[in-house]
Amino acid sequence: MTAYEHTSAESATRTETDSMGPIEVPADRYWGAQTQRSLKYFAIGHDIMPEEIIRAFGLLKKAAAQANRELGKLPPDKADLIIAAAQEVQDGKLSGHFPLHVWQTGSGTQTNMNANEVIANRAIEMAGGVAGSKQPVHPNDHVNMSQSSNDTFPAAMHIAAALMLSHDLIPAVRYLRVALQDKAARWDHIVKIGRTHLQDAVPMTLGQEFSGYVALLDENLERLESTLPHLYKLALGGTAVGTGLNTHPQFAKTAVANIAEETGLPFVPAANFFAALSAHDAVVMTSGALKTLACSLMKIANDIRWLASGPRSGIGELELPANEPGSSIMPGKVNPTQSEAMTMVAVQVMGLDAAIGFAGSQGNFELNVFKPVMIFNLLTGMRLLADSCHSFTDHAVKGLLANEASIARHVAASLMLVTALAPEIGYDKAAEVAHRAHKEGGTLKDTCLRLGYLTAERFDEIVQPLKMAKPHG
Amino acid sequence: MTAYEHTSAESATRTETDSMGPIEVPADRYWGAQTQRSLKYFAIGHDIMPEEIIRAFGLLKKAAAQANRELGKLPPDKADLIIAAAQEVQDGKLSGHFPLHVWQTGSGTQTNMNANEVIANRAIEMAGGVAGSKQPVHPNDHVNMSQSSNDTFPAAMHIAAALMLSHDLIPAVRYLRVALQDKAARWDHIVKIGRTHLQDAVPMTLGQEFSGYVALLDENLERLESTLPHLYKLALGGTAVGTGLNTHPQFAKTAVANIAEETGLPFVPAANFFAALSAHDAVVMTSGALKTLACSLMKIANDIRWLASGPRSGIGELELPANEPGSSIMPGKVNPTQSEAMTMVAVQVMGLDAAIGFAGSQGNFELNVFKPVMIFNLLTGMRLLADSCHSFTDHAVKGLLANEASIARHVAASLMLVTALAPEIGYDKAAEVAHRAHKEGGTLKDTCLRLGYLTAERFDEIVQPLKMAKPHG
Amino acid sequence: MTAYEHTSAESATRTETDSMGPIEVPADRYWGAQTQRSLKYFAIGHDIMPEEIIRAFGLLKKAAAQANRELGKLPPDKADLIIAAAQEVQDGKLSGHFPLHVWQTGSGTQTNMNANEVIANRAIEMAGGVAGSKQPVHPNDHVNMSQSSNDTFPAAMHIAAALMLSHDLIPAVRYLRVALQDKAARWDHIVKIGRTHLQDAVPMTLGQEFSGYVALLDENLERLESTLPHLYKLALGGTAVGTGLNTHPQFAKTAVANIAEETGLPFVPAANFFAALSAHDAVVMTSGALKTLACSLMKIANDIRWLASGPRSGIGELELPANEPGSSIMPGKVNPTQSEAMTMVAVQVMGLDAAIGFAGSQGNFELNVFKPVMIFNLLTGMRLLADSCHSFTDHAVKGLLANEASIARHVAASLMLVTALAPEIGYDKAAEVAHRAHKEGGTLKDTCLRLGYLTAERFDEIVQPLKMAKPHG
Amino acid sequence: MTAYEHTSAESATRTETDSMGPIEVPADRYWGAQTQRSLKYFAIGHDIMPEEIIRAFGLLKKAAAQANRELGKLPPDKADLIIAAAQEVQDGKLSGHFPLHVWQTGSGTQTNMNANEVIANRAIEMAGGVAGSKQPVHPNDHVNMSQSSNDTFPAAMHIAAALMLSHDLIPAVRYLRVALQDKAARWDHIVKIGRTHLQDAVPMTLGQEFSGYVALLDENLERLESTLPHLYKLALGGTAVGTGLNTHPQFAKTAVANIAEETGLPFVPAANFFAALSAHDAVVMTSGALKTLACSLMKIANDIRWLASGPRSGIGELELPANEPGSSIMPGKVNPTQSEAMTMVAVQVMGLDAAIGFAGSQGNFELNVFKPVMIFNLLTGMRLLADSCHSFTDHAVKGLLANEASIARHVAASLMLVTALAPEIGYDKAAEVAHRAHKEGGTLKDTCLRLGYLTAERFDEIVQPLKMAKPHG
Repeated sequence: MTAYEHTSAESATRTETDSMGPIEVPADRYWGAQTQRSLKYFAIGHDIMPEEIIRAFGLLKKAAAQANRELGKLPPDKADLIIAAAQEVQDGKLSGHFPLHVWQTGSGTQTNMNANEVIANRAIEMAGGVAGSKQPVHPNDHVNMSQSSNDTFPAAMHIAAALMLSHDLIPAVRYLRVALQDKAARWDHIVKIGRTHLQDAVPMTLGQEFSGYVALLDENLERLESTLPHLYKLALGGTAVGTGLNTHPQFAKTAVANIAEETGLPFVPAANFFAALSAHDAVVMTSGALKTLACSLMKIANDIRWLASGPRSGIGELELPANEPGSSIMPGKVNPTQSEAMTMVAVQVMGLDAAIGFAGSQGNFELNVFKPVMIFNLLTGMRLLADSCHSFTDHAVKGLLANEASIARHVAASLMLVTALAPEIGYDKAAEVAHRAHKEGGTLKDTCLRLGYLTAERFDEIVQPLKMAKPHG
Repeated sequence: MTAYEHTSAESATRTETDSMGPIEVPADRYWGAQTQRSLKYFAIGHDIMPEEIIRAFGLLKKAAAQANRELGKLPPDKADLIIAAAQEVQDGKLSGHFPLHVWQTGSGTQTNMNANEVIANRAIEMAGGVAGSKQPVHPNDHVNMSQSSNDTFPAAMHIAAALMLSHDLIPAVRYLRVALQDKAARWDHIVKIGRTHLQDAVPMTLGQEFSGYVALLDENLERLESTLPHLYKLALGGTAVGTGLNTHPQFAKTAVANIAEETGLPFVPAANFFAALSAHDAVVMTSGALKTLACSLMKIANDIRWLASGPRSGIGELELPANEPGSSIMPGKVNPTQSEAMTMVAVQVMGLDAAIGFAGSQGNFELNVFKPVMIFNLLTGMRLLADSCHSFTDHAVKGLLANEASIARHVAASLMLVTALAPEIGYDKAAEVAHRAHKEGGTLKDTCLRLGYLTAERFDEIVQPLKMAKPHG
Repeated sequence: MTAYEHTSAESATRTETDSMGPIEVPADRYWGAQTQRSLKYFAIGHDIMPEEIIRAFGLLKKAAAQANRELGKLPPDKADLIIAAAQEVQDGKLSGHFPLHVWQTGSGTQTNMNANEVIANRAIEMAGGVAGSKQPVHPNDHVNMSQSSNDTFPAAMHIAAALMLSHDLIPAVRYLRVALQDKAARWDHIVKIGRTHLQDAVPMTLGQEFSGYVALLDENLERLESTLPHLYKLALGGTAVGTGLNTHPQFAKTAVANIAEETGLPFVPAANFFAALSAHDAVVMTSGALKTLACSLMKIANDIRWLASGPRSGIGELELPANEPGSSIMPGKVNPTQSEAMTMVAVQVMGLDAAIGFAGSQGNFELNVFKPVMIFNLLTGMRLLADSCHSFTDHAVKGLLANEASIARHVAASLMLVTALAPEIGYDKAAEVAHRAHKEGGTLKDTCLRLGYLTAERFDEIVQPLKMAKPHG
Repeated sequence: MTAYEHTSAESATRTETDSMGPIEVPADRYWGAQTQRSLKYFAIGHDIMPEEIIRAFGLLKKAAAQANRELGKLPPDKADLIIAAAQEVQDGKLSGHFPLHVWQTGSGTQTNMNANEVIANRAIEMAGGVAGSKQPVHPNDHVNMSQSSNDTFPAAMHIAAALMLSHDLIPAVRYLRVALQDKAARWDHIVKIGRTHLQDAVPMTLGQEFSGYVALLDENLERLESTLPHLYKLALGGTAVGTGLNTHPQFAKTAVANIAEETGLPFVPAANFFAALSAHDAVVMTSGALKTLACSLMKIANDIRWLASGPRSGIGELELPANEPGSSIMPGKVNPTQSEAMTMVAVQVMGLDAAIGFAGSQGNFELNVFKPVMIFNLLTGMRLLADSCHSFTDHAVKGLLANEASIARHVAASLMLVTALAPEIGYDKAAEVAHRAHKEGGTLKDTCLRLGYLTAERFDEIVQPLKMAKPHG
């Protein structure tokens, strides 16, 4: 249900015009003719353009007006009106005036015009003018001055993505990382059986296991950060095809500097505007980093739910907090639901990434017209990952407990402690010990002694789980 | 923004309880303790459980209560209350009481409990009881009687998917098919140059070209329909793991018959409930059919925008309706925006399909816990495809015009008419004619005559574009 | 390494010509100028055109020559030579003469010409002629008579796919299904604990669990078969753009009937050739069916390895045959390697499917030029799935054993038997029993009695694992 | 067809043994019992373990033996034998002795053992011993000393990937970049019409258009390089689960330093071995960079074939070299086949990436057992991209010509030159001029003058295509 549907069912209307002619729009909305046409022609699905893009447009329109004023292209009075109205868009105060769907023109032109129209009409209102009159502020000639959808939309994509990555996703991953590191430190002494191929392997500590999760997140943080410099390159200033037609020579530099100053992020004009309009590789690569993070999160969430499986017929080495009843039919059941949400998110991020890559390959000539689907998927993926990192941390990791009795029982029973014998008696004899012990149900030590391969003293000297877990101290 | 956020910010609350204890819920909502816990523990993303799933739950709960009454398990007075309340859910009257996110427990348990709780409290209200008292209707013991989330959620998935496929997507594809067939018939006489590898090839008619689009959709309709029988198999009756524990032996048959009668679709109990709970191959395969449709739609939408490219420096054989201004900077530009929305949707469907397949492979033992993401993506894909078929038909296909002058100019200039000569003079000589004409900029006929391969009369007899387009009459 | 690289490094050469001029080819190879050019211009990767496509071309060229002879277009002596040479291609006797890469022209023209050239030169050889002379058999005028790459390549795609699906993949899935059904029957009496969300759930039998796997495969077999009718539709007869230019009116029908008779599969000419050349939805949909099968196989292979996890610190309810040493460092380790191969194959099939879908969407106008990648991926997926079904059956399923002691221990310990109490004492009290027993480490029965909810007799009457597993007998 | 099938069909055999017992192997092959078992148990598909992985194993085994010798664990005579044999593996001299399939155990254990066995037997041969005797060199105790498959296989993955990325793919992309840059420089003066949404837009130069391609590749080169540091981190030294059990404390550092010195690449031991064995995020991320490159390559290859479309009924602004005949039925046809191969490769890389991401998410506990499919796909993708960059450069880009007549005709006809008027007369009037000119078929200038919006002099001053293409000089 779009904002439009919410608000305008019984509204009065006013007439707005564009180069196609007049059209009625809801009287209580700032948008104009082109937004209204888009609502009519693109009633597809439920997804509307993400809030983060709308706010980025507010920032961008403000920065452009500032630059045009500074460069003497836009009269200060008009510029100030635009700046004031754009600030409201940036602050989210006018979000109810951005009703357009993701599934619109592939350049995002209609959302750029939505921004132009809302800012123009709000500026006109501030100036005491008549909505739709385009006086004293024209949506194209003034709000869109020195711009095209073809450079503003990709610039807004990068701004929104860089802000969300910096301010939401990266902090959320760090939040989870800290919680896992806390467990790794706390559990550093708990010796457990390692598992490879799902089969019992040699010992390690539970803290070591969790240190692996921390390391995965650390490397993912590096990867996420490594994609930021590409997002900092803005298409703004390229206008229609990348030549910068109808801009002042200093426009790109000036407008982008304004954006950098306001956000505190080192945005710069793209080195080559032709590339910046016609392909969105930075988005594809950032999505690749999200997918890589999703791989690690899926692995971590899976490990935790498997280690917590049971309570009586599973592995049972961890205990998850019991947040809610697990079953509508099985009383008393508790399920690893936070892992389930996290792994569903991971799967979704991979699907979104597939669409982003495909879309990113489909540019033709001077423009890629799959912009809305690309940024919608990227921001959706970031939102899902950030939220689920928080949820998983608060509702699964923080309350996670080690079942030390169960862990100790598994270590004691393991046959793979035999591995420590191999350097001493050779792989083949060690394998014989393990096979026999398994077949006959005996212990490693008894079997090894019976076969005469080692003395009891030497066996005990070698086969020490904690020493095996930390062979180098 | 969830329904919850809309409505309850300043609401008064009441106390609800579940096996975890008491919790406050908004006083003006029917949901209970487990729904409230889910809101707390799963604040992830913006997507809420699709309306279609909620309505399917209404239908399913009603059908289950009818069956339980009929089989003597549920007292008629309780049953009738449940049936009345469930009818309201089915009719969409209580949709504001289903605030849960897609990204919750992977079994959909919380949405099943949401349905149980809303129906119970609404039924209690109808009976004049106290909300949250579970008297006279208990969410688990009565509304969920003979059911588990593990069989109801996959049943609701199939019901929602089958209904949407039958009532939305298939009719939408037919709607587009009719519009394309109309063009195919109208344009059957217009001879144009065919294009292979983007290069000029032998002639055909514009109607033939569009008949290809019609044929693609016809085959896709067959494919979509071929997936329905698998969706008609419902998991209902399997309860927790597929054994049907706690159900009457006739429950599955009776409840599913009620659903079939109400919907007019031939739903049956799944032949093997263990399979029906632990994998969702029917959803994966239906998604495969959506993806196949997306392939055809992408091809059709691409063809139309390329044929309409120009207006002066492209192919220019078709003219799209000018629905809206195309550019914020280039005055007078008209763009193939409907094709853009359609191709973005096609790309998205492929991404959703990738996630569905991945999720579908991740079942463990008796349950696949990626149910919400699977059905969310399937229903989203259907909605996008259905809506964009309508939009594309109304706003691109119906008003499409043939530019016959441009088409004729291209036929006249073509070198590939030479193909008709090959059976007469051989491939090698025909190739020579084409190469020479191309290099020297001449016509085929002049070149052929100059090389002495044919008489002018014979040339004219053979090289007739319309005859070449319809060689068998 | 291509066949070409194998064989011709030091070969003598002869001169072949095409419309581009002369070129040297290895003297001991039947291919001609166009094949040689392709080797030069497309030295990309290691993959060569699959054997199955080459054999399908043999069959197709034979069938076309038979039809052209029958319809009076091709003199019987030339036709018979072509038929004899094509038969050798169909039989795989000339496979060393098909060196071309998958990554060539997207129409597969070069492979069609490879077939035309090899058959022509082999026919010339049979007739005692001079290789490369095109006398008495010309690769284009005679071998390719009434054909184009644009209709033969997609026809060969469908022939190869339908044959491999019918003769390899479907039988392989059936082979696995029989082995799983055998286990399901044998193990029907073994009561075990079901698991949902990886957590202990209500009881079932091991046979029931395996019956679920059988049911998944049965439904996948139906799905695979449901895609065959679309593969039976052949593009042959459409020639360059779908109009059938340069064919006899009866050619398509006659040639395709020959193919149907030879293969015993009901091939028919495509109803609309324009669609058949420009999109390959049948391939996309069959790939969707492969992906769906991959989902089930991944789930089955995962279940089996998890149930066999241990041997001492996992679930340990199944025992896999010990085929090979599992570790280079851990002596005596046995791993679920067949499951690992199977799940890697499943993952690969999903990747291949993603590429097929993308490629299938990229047709332009009268031709889709992503044919080689589409059929290469489809046939690769079929081969991998068929081979791994055989391997998994022979080396994992057939020798699979149930560890009944471990299974019984898990049932005895389970808390979820409490579910059977819910209809008697209500969900809330049953949950209380389970929670208490879990927290206090007691048995369900003791707890239930202590809480005074049931008598010992009634408890024993209700809580019977086998009765719970088969509640309806 | 595997190397095994090639060579040993009628070979004599000898007996090899492992912990499972004796088995016959071909007498003329160096491999031992475990390799032979893998051939028997994993006859799946056609793909064998990539040559690059085998060579990396040679290097790694050599480096390990050097380290073990240096650290006093391995007697110098045994070490020297291993080093000499491993060198032959590294040099590719023993590649015929590595017959194993990709679809084997997911840890790559069998390929690690293949390397251990081949090196041991070759070393034994050098020492004059008896093949299979394990004297004086034992495959596990000596060749595999201080190692596990679990750390060697992922180390070999990173070594192979880093080498191929550095030495093949990056240089290939640079090769294409140089050729495109040459065109960009040469064509900097040719003014052409830009195209957005496939529609005529404002002018630019052909050189600018190609500069966009160069910029895309430059940024992709940065991205590819940015993934190298993660590949430089080697798992070697972690042994079975990451603890480094059975290694000398200096082993990891020493062995990895040997690898770094030999390759000239800055390999280091992974900071956390638990992460390095159980997830392969570096592979996933590098694959993401390949996919991003594929997006750009697809866009470039598509642009070039569309710009070269025609020759008479397309856009026709570029002319591709005519490398080979394009059609088996249409004489004289030339097709953009290099673009077709390139775009098929791009599509395949996206499919491979989907499989890599999925596989990368599936690790459990201490090991990810999808290693072979991950590295096979990554190396395949690199190979395809590198080869197709070379092919596309040599056979499409270098010989590419600009059709200046056609380009000039398009500029002259364009209506979008009107954009330059907007700052002067406003967007709305400029749109009116364009609409009228389009509808009435007139020129912009005549229309503008007729409407009285500008003088002819002012019009000519503003509307200068070259000035519009380079507004800032």
